[in-house]
Amino acid sequence: MNKYLKLDKWNIIEEGFVHENVTSSESIFSIGNGRMGQRANFEEKYSGETLQGNYIAGVYYPDKTKVGWWKNGYPEYFAKVLNAANWIGINIKVDGEELDLNTSKVGKFKRTLNMLEGHLLRSFSATMQNKNTVEVNAQRFLSIVDDDLGLIKYAIKAVNFSGVISIAPYVDVDVVNEDSNYDEKFWDSITQSASDNEASITAKTKKTNFVVTTAMRYEIWKNGEKLELAPVASFRDKYAESMSEIKVAEGDELIIYKFATNVSSFNHNVSKLEEVAKLELNKAQNKHYDTMLEEQKQAWAAKWEESDITIEGDVEAQQAIRFNIFQLNQTYTGEDERLNIGPKGFTGEKYGGVTYWDTEAYCLPFYLATADKHVARNLLLYRYKQLNRAIENAAKLGFNSGAALFPMVTMNGEECHNEWEITFEEIHRNGAIAFAVYNYIRYTDDKEYLEDYGLELLIGISRFWSQRITYSENYKKYVMLGVTGPNEYENNVDNNWYTNTLACWTMDYTQEVLDHVKSVAPAKFKALSEKLNFTESVELARWTDISDNMHYPEDKELGVFLQQDNYLNKEQILVKDLDPKHRPINQNWSWDRILRSCFIKQADTLQGIYLFEENYDKETIERNFDFYEQRTVHESSLSPCVHTVLAAKLDRMDQAYDLYLRTSRLDLDDYNVEVHEGLHITSMAGTWMSVVQGFGGLRVNNGKVYLNPRTPKAWDSYSFKVRFRGSVLKVNASKNSVEVENQSSNDVSLVLFDKEYKVKGNDSLTINN
Amino acid sequence: MNKYLKLDKWNIIEEGFVHENVTSSESIFSIGNGRMGQRANFEEKYSGETLQGNYIAGVYYPDKTKVGWWKNGYPEYFAKVLNAANWIGINIKVDGEELDLNTSKVGKFKRTLNMLEGHLLRSFSATMQNKNTVEVNAQRFLSIVDDDLGLIKYAIKAVNFSGVISIAPYVDVDVVNEDSNYDEKFWDSITQSASDNEASITAKTKKTNFVVTTAMRYEIWKNGEKLELAPVASFRDKYAESMSEIKVAEGDELIIYKFATNVSSFNHNVSKLEEVAKLELNKAQNKHYDTMLEEQKQAWAAKWEESDITIEGDVEAQQAIRFNIFQLNQTYTGEDERLNIGPKGFTGEKYGGVTYWDTEAYCLPFYLATADKHVARNLLLYRYKQLNRAIENAAKLGFNSGAALFPMVTMNGEECHNEWEITFEEIHRNGAIAFAVYNYIRYTDDKEYLEDYGLELLIGISRFWSQRITYSENYKKYVMLGVTGPNEYENNVDNNWYTNTLACWTMDYTQEVLDHVKSVAPAKFKALSEKLNFTESVELARWTDISDNMHYPEDKELGVFLQQDNYLNKEQILVKDLDPKHRPINQNWSWDRILRSCFIKQADTLQGIYLFEENYDKETIERNFDFYEQRTVHESSLSPCVHTVLAAKLDRMDQAYDLYLRTSRLDLDDYNVEVHEGLHITSMAGTWMSVVQGFGGLRVNNGKVYLNPRTPKAWDSYSFKVRFRGSVLKVNASKNSVEVENQSSNDVSLVLFDKEYKVKGNDSLTINN
Repeated sequence: MNKYLKLDKWNIIEEGFVHENVTSSESIFSIGNGRMGQRANFEEKYSGETLQGNYIAGVYYPDKTKVGWWKNGYPEYFAKVLNAANWIGINIKVDGEELDLNTSKVGKFKRTLNMLEGHLLRSFSATMQNKNTVEVNAQRFLSIVDDDLGLIKYAIKAVNFSGVISIAPYVDVDVVNEDSNYDEKFWDSITQSASDNEASITAKTKKTNFVVTTAMRYEIWKNGEKLELAPVASFRDKYAESMSEIKVAEGDELIIYKFATNVSSFNHNVSKLEEVAKLELNKAQNKHYDTMLEEQKQAWAAKWEESDITIEGDVEAQQAIRFNIFQLNQTYTGEDERLNIGPKGFTGEKYGGVTYWDTEAYCLPFYLATADKHVARNLLLYRYKQLNRAIENAAKLGFNSGAALFPMVTMNGEECHNEWEITFEEIHRNGAIAFAVYNYIRYTDDKEYLEDYGLELLIGISRFWSQRITYSENYKKYVMLGVTGPNEYENNVDNNWYTNTLACWTMDYTQEVLDHVKSVAPAKFKALSEKLNFTESVELARWTDISDNMHYPEDKELGVFLQQDNYLNKEQILVKDLDPKHRPINQNWSWDRILRSCFIKQADTLQGIYLFEENYDKETIERNFDFYEQRTVHESSLSPCVHTVLAAKLDRMDQAYDLYLRTSRLDLDDYNVEVHEGLHITSMAGTWMSVVQGFGGLRVNNGKVYLNPRTPKAWDSYSFKVRFRGSVLKVNASKNSVEVENQSSNDVSLVLFDKEYKVKGNDSLTINN
Repeated sequence: MNKYLKLDKWNIIEEGFVHENVTSSESIFSIGNGRMGQRANFEEKYSGETLQGNYIAGVYYPDKTKVGWWKNGYPEYFAKVLNAANWIGINIKVDGEELDLNTSKVGKFKRTLNMLEGHLLRSFSATMQNKNTVEVNAQRFLSIVDDDLGLIKYAIKAVNFSGVISIAPYVDVDVVNEDSNYDEKFWDSITQSASDNEASITAKTKKTNFVVTTAMRYEIWKNGEKLELAPVASFRDKYAESMSEIKVAEGDELIIYKFATNVSSFNHNVSKLEEVAKLELNKAQNKHYDTMLEEQKQAWAAKWEESDITIEGDVEAQQAIRFNIFQLNQTYTGEDERLNIGPKGFTGEKYGGVTYWDTEAYCLPFYLATADKHVARNLLLYRYKQLNRAIENAAKLGFNSGAALFPMVTMNGEECHNEWEITFEEIHRNGAIAFAVYNYIRYTDDKEYLEDYGLELLIGISRFWSQRITYSENYKKYVMLGVTGPNEYENNVDNNWYTNTLACWTMDYTQEVLDHVKSVAPAKFKALSEKLNFTESVELARWTDISDNMHYPEDKELGVFLQQDNYLNKEQILVKDLDPKHRPINQNWSWDRILRSCFIKQADTLQGIYLFEENYDKETIERNFDFYEQRTVHESSLSPCVHTVLAAKLDRMDQAYDLYLRTSRLDLDDYNVEVHEGLHITSMAGTWMSVVQGFGGLRVNNGKVYLNPRTPKAWDSYSFKVRFRGSVLKVNASKNSVEVENQSSNDVSLVLFDKEYKVKGNDSLTINN
């Protein structure tokens, strides 16, 4: 834990300069606009420890797989969103000495991430080796209005000297990835140029041949007047700059406006990239900084209008939930169905920036409830468009006839991960992707999606399950052998209850969707059947047979579902009885000891109960919750939120709140001393779930919204919004009352505290408890 | 399969030069003397594909571990016996053109590995680009009498020209390992020198700092007369040569005698290495080639006297079994308890030349039966001396109080392997090491070994089992969770029957040994107890409790022991029903498909029945054999021998013989098209087991030798020898009779065909059937 940030409802604030916190703050103060992202590296040179990170969505490198012992079926590469050209850099020299906070005496250092308006401010004074002191106020943002643009306003004041300040804004693609399996650099340069007040680099990723032009232009203003510059432009391989020397007198202030753009072949014709970059820079310079900042504020205001959660009476919680929502919205905007959400978003290299089941299981509910339906739809289309690759992936593992296994980790639909127990066995991910379709439909009722995409995907996944599941003559039941559940602290187990449950649910739901599509769109159904060689009678019969005769491990005496067939043969020790010195066990125990123990990394059986809660009575949920919560070490950031939702459901608000606290400030307070690697973006969605589904009790089922708001002791009140089938509900909950505003013109069916209401358009409902 | 060698009872013969077979023959024609080994690389330059290999026992490099995903507990390095200096090289030029079989027209090429006498002969004629034709007869051997020495007699004849032959014998340590994780070279040079007719290099391995001096001296004789040479000696970093130019007339024959030595800091004081090398070369030159070759023949004759197996009526089988015995004797001589037997011996780099459980499970029985007891004893001492490392290894995984887990793969006692499912879970190896003690004792009756070493090692291993085994409240039995049995096609299973059986046996045997030592050597026992903090009452009580209440998976209906708890939930498909196109499955199936299948890589449950055969009635053995043999794909070279022994025991001689054929010529006929990587040295011991324990029915139990010789249809007769407690028995078996000669002066108790006999010293017993 490393708690050094100030509390504030709308801002993340760091005061004082501590070298050891630089890389952590680089993560926390990251900015992004869905199209690109930027760690909070300094504009000027910094010779201390830093992790430079500039990421462009969709631009990746297939890094050759590193493996100790090859297993048949492993992928050849791991796709990585890579560190792209540095566009923020501005080298500053004062009378020949380079400004560098690592070697200067730094004062009044303050950093503010303004979440309300979507920009980052950094101010400091620095006394250099040559005794000159400067004051700097540097502000920057990545526009969510013009999402190829990044802007910097860098003000520097000569506090105690007259002299020459040399200012050299640059672009630089001679960058490294820390996460490179073979210490390669991933970029080859194509062209670089610099002239007048501009510089530009066009570079290409190795192997994947993505071409990106990174270009910049700048202006310098002195004491409020724009200067005529006489820049010295220069470039070398992978680097281009334009340098201006400005004479200043004591007290003078220079402002550098740096307009920068990253345009890539992911979005533009390669031959036009440099032209497009020029046009983008023109646009930025014409609108200019203040106008674009104003647009940025407005655009962020609109996002907050949709997705804000307010919490009264607990600034720490308020700041945390907004930080989580802000980062989610910086990472994914939902405008491009080729993009997805990496576990670290654009804030670090870990996990390669590629797609995991986190998206469907954790992020989707957030976007479903807080954004227009096309955002969630694009997340679904991302997978649909990779369906053929999922079929190829399954074929590689020996499945056939169109069975689809979506990869554990992917950029373009191909599997990237290579641990057999995960790559080949953690197949519950396939179910999460099927469940996402159901989740999307119940929130949006967009049944056309099923006709055009959903059913095809569901059939592919159901076909996989029906082949992956085998019949045990021993049990006289169907079984699923050799899997890894969400609890990665057990590997290669038989009949993981969660995976079995999800698999059979998929086959049932596929039949339901199939019946629907057949009846409302018979021509589409016929075409699809032909395309897929779908033999309805045979395949449906098998799915039904499996679903009716599946083996679910269970202990009747304890009244709990068993995580897997052999779970109860393990020594049953409770987390509370673990020596605290041994925790986290993933840092203190050998891997085999972890595997043999009963300790659970993250919600597994409870993940299933969370998904299908309506199928179980409260006592069953309670027994399972008590059994598994006592054995769960929550060593994944994705774990506590599911337990929070269930604990709240069981009216255990103190326990729910304790669990909630573990994630909401995970990054801000750096619980695991790892925030320097990047933020836990996908688990931030879990924080949102904890509040809205946990405390708020939001459920959507059978075309109705269910709410059951409870207020944690520590809070006075809170509010959140939910989109549902074209309507927007705002929920204001306090200890005494709940108000639900229907902010749309449609009527909404609502079950509040187990009682059904119809809330008319633009009307509201208030219940005092 | 690649069958290109000629059949012969005592020789391995290759005729004709085929470029594609060069690397395979390099493996097959390898020579070794236990102290060093040498692939059959050519003396003269060869520009075609080759795997150069010169190995020095005990000299290894700790290559930094390569791993995709790190797991807690993984080792930092993998020890590798490394490719050492080339000592065989003789560069030959004829009128300025280098002799190179890759660019010459080659005729009359023949290679003979003379197994009876222990040397390698190669002869050929080569017409070079310059039309000059030479005839070469090159013979070499690694002396088993003076085991630091290697000798070459290289005869070259000017067939069709008069001119100048330049001869440059050299030593060269600028060599690579193909198996290098990070493409490093493993040697640093210390000194190199060359003068007159000598050259020498002293080099040091990186990290481990083994120092090796490789030195050579040569003579050249022309038409039977020794020449006075005027050599040009030269050296550069890592390379030293002495070159002589000899004028020859058509028909002249030159003979080069190259005397070479490898002396290492593994055996000598570093400061004396160059001096020792000089003395070794003096010795070689003084004795000279013919004398040393004669000594070599006599020494090999003595080895064959002890270990030969004769087979009449089947040359192919005769050649194969001798090849296997020859290679085993080349690899390990048993004179140095710091050495062990790598799976490829000195014939290739694969598996790093390090120690596996192969030694105890497969090789030990061979050496027990065919060599003086100190040979097997040294194999046992090797492990005993690494006991502290095994205790450290267990501690690293979370065990305590002196529990010992011997590594899966090791050079110096530290674990080298890093696949969690093997490194941490394939712990049956620990049992094999305990069983080796028992095996040694029953053959030798060397009970003092138990007092001084055996008991201590057994206590360490039993302590490990007693901690690794846990109590299942569910079964109300002891269980062992998360293991990998010998069948590596199942990973992380619960209650592998073989491992459970072996573990409980170890604890029982440890108690038995403990009682023995306590009664015969109470002082030693007391000292040991104190050294180990052994709390007899507590520890023995736990061992007994476990052994009495262990869970053994079993299917009563089928009457078979189950490989693991969940084995019968797998789809039960038989090997005969596998599509041949899918075999071997380890090349055609994804890893998860293999894991989920019921197919067995190598004997597992049957390995246990093989070890403890006397505990099961014939019907039980038969049921288990039939069940598992039908599911075993034998994709380890270590597998068929165990099945052969059991099949023979069950009187299924045809099946036994079919299984036997799979291994005896595995390398000679290159069944798996991989012999270029090296020979399957440890599985060669399995071939010996198949004949002696399988067809011969040899068992040793309760101080008696059991024999039950059966003769395969294809053979007329066969013979083998067995050492037993100081006696030597020679068994001559044919279809009509069995003769057992007691070649020692002791009386021997013998059970032949289930009937007990006492065979007096130097007497024999003949039974006609």
